[in-house]
Amino acid sequence: GEPRSPLAEALLFSADRAQHVEHLIQPAIQAGKLVLVDRYYYSTVAFQGYGRGYSIETLLSLSDIAIQMCKPDIVLLLDLDPAAGLKRNAEKEEEDRFELEEIEFHTKLRQGFLDLAKNLEEPFAVLDARRAPESILQEAVQYIDRVLASR
Amino acid sequence: GEPRSPLAEALLFSADRAQHVEHLIQPAIQAGKLVLVDRYYYSTVAFQGYGRGYSIETLLSLSDIAIQMCKPDIVLLLDLDPAAGLKRNAEKEEEDRFELEEIEFHTKLRQGFLDLAKNLEEPFAVLDARRAPESILQEAVQYIDRVLASR
Repeated sequence: GEPRSPLAEALLFSADRAQHVEHLIQPAIQAGKLVLVDRYYYSTVAFQGYGRGYSIETLLSLSDIAIQMCKPDIVLLLDLDPAAGLKRNAEKEEEDRFELEEIEFHTKLRQGFLDLAKNLEEPFAVLDARRAPESILQEAVQYIDRVLASR
Repeated sequence: GEPRSPLAEALLFSADRAQHVEHLIQPAIQAGKLVLVDRYYYSTVAFQGYGRGYSIETLLSLSDIAIQMCKPDIVLLLDLDPAAGLKRNAEKEEEDRFELEEIEFHTKLRQGFLDLAKNLEEPFAVLDARRAPESILQEAVQYIDRVLASR
C-alpha cells in the first residue's frame, strides 16, 4: 500500500473524534452526566505531531474543528518513562499498533504530552505513573474532587 | 446506525483528499505533469456546507488544511438546472448516493457551487451545461488553452 500520510491519519482520527463528540459526549453533557474519556485530541497531536513530525499548529487547528469547543474541565496525564511503560505492556502481553515502535518515538510522545500539559488552556494534572495503581488513583480522585468542588 | 454527522463526513472526505493530494497530485505536479481532477474540495464545501447546512467557514478552513495550498490553476464548473441534471442521470440509469435526494437539495448545491465560483481566489470557468457535450468541451479547451498560454 501507499505510505501513511500523517495528515490523512490525523483527519481520520478527527472524523472519529467529531462523531464521538457529537453523538456521545455532547448529549451526555447536556443530560447533566459526568463524562470520562480515555485519550482525546491530545493523542492525535502527540502521535502525528510530536511523534511523526507533522505541524503541531495545524493539528491543533484541526482538533479545534473536530471537537467543536468541547474541552475537558480536567485532564489526567499519567506520566511514565517509555522504557518502563513498554516493559509493563510486554508483561501484560498486550499488543498495540504503536507499541512496536522504538523507545525513541515514545520519548518524543512523552515530551509532546508534557508540552501540551504545559501550553494548553485546559488544566492538566500530571501524575507520576511509576507508583502503585492505588496511589495514582488516590491522587486522581483528589484532583477530580477539587475540580468538582470548585464548580 | 447513528445519524450522520456533517462534520465527521467532511473530515472523512478531507482525509481521502489529503491522501490524494499528497500521494498523487503533488508528485505529478513535481514531475511536471498536467493534472486534471474530477471534483475537489469544492464538492465537500457544497455538499456539507450549502447542502447540509454545516459552517462554510469551517469547511473552507478544513479544506485548506487537507489540500495544503494545492489549488488548481483553473476550475471548470459545468452548471445545469438540477431538474435537468437529475433527468439526465435517470436516463443513464446511474446510481449515486446523493442523486436520490430532492431537487431542493440540489438547488442549494448549485447555488453553493456558483457562490464558490464567485468568491474563491482560484479562477472558475462557469460553463453552461445545457448545451451539447462537444460544445461544452470546445469552450473548456479554450479556457484551458488560455490559462496554459498565460503561464
